[in-house]
Amino acid sequence: MKEELFNDEYFMKQAFVEAQKAFDKEEIPVGAVVVANNTIVARAHNLTETLNDVTAHAEMQVITAATNTIGSKYLNECTMFITLEPCVMCAGALFWAQLRKLVYGASDLKRGYTKCPIPLLHPKTKVITGIMAHESELLLQDFFRKKR
Amino acid sequence: MKEELFNDEYFMKQAFVEAQKAFDKEEIPVGAVVVANNTIVARAHNLTETLNDVTAHAEMQVITAATNTIGSKYLNECTMFITLEPCVMCAGALFWAQLRKLVYGASDLKRGYTKCPIPLLHPKTKVITGIMAHESELLLQDFFRKKR
Repeated sequence: MKEELFNDEYFMKQAFVEAQKAFDKEEIPVGAVVVANNTIVARAHNLTETLNDVTAHAEMQVITAATNTIGSKYLNECTMFITLEPCVMCAGALFWAQLRKLVYGASDLKRGYTKCPIPLLHPKTKVITGIMAHESELLLQDFFRKKR
Repeated sequence: MKEELFNDEYFMKQAFVEAQKAFDKEEIPVGAVVVANNTIVARAHNLTETLNDVTAHAEMQVITAATNTIGSKYLNECTMFITLEPCVMCAGALFWAQLRKLVYGASDLKRGYTKCPIPLLHPKTKVITGIMAHESELLLQDFFRKKR
């Protein structure tokens, strides 16, 4: 059986490339891409330090960029790949965006949206977790080790 | 006893002026100002339709604008006045901003952050509610009546 060419791992690698860009800028290394019809329509990484803006998480930027590209306010035909579990702010944004599918890598045990006991995402959003979780965690650990 | 000149009502009126600007643009009428040392450092209103961006809530924009003005990523010396109770996304952003004090007008029974059973704001954020709630509700009702 031939493996699908554009699978979740393929696009998560692209999100990971974004996380590495954040790392190189001394930003907490989190990266994201948004995909529609097997095509990347937006890519972004965390820029909270560079932009001096707590709202500049990779997810927030990639939502704005993707909706700009596709010309719709809603991402109900899109998948977002993100190297780390979204926080409450970003999950709230994904709710408004009516995202079709969310794929994330590492879990965020402290600030991840799944700590909230009520569902924060849109009821139609499908969620896949753990893709390249180990690599994403290692990159985050590397970052925080350097900072100490 | 002389009433304080710059009280919560004073600044909420300015947030309400912003909400009216949103109304005039056929945006859901929500407005916000951020205040530091009795001075307005940023003002914004909902622009989700104009910008075609679900993240363009008044709160998100006023956080970005305020941190730009004051040159700090954190709003731990600031008060935000907002005509409507923030949603989960905006409450998550206010957590990251470490807002000192939040004053909101009308409650949002459907999408307000207080529907969440765990605290979403920063533990240090003081919250005042109900300031000009009636006026803000009427403006929202007017808007949705026009849309029908």
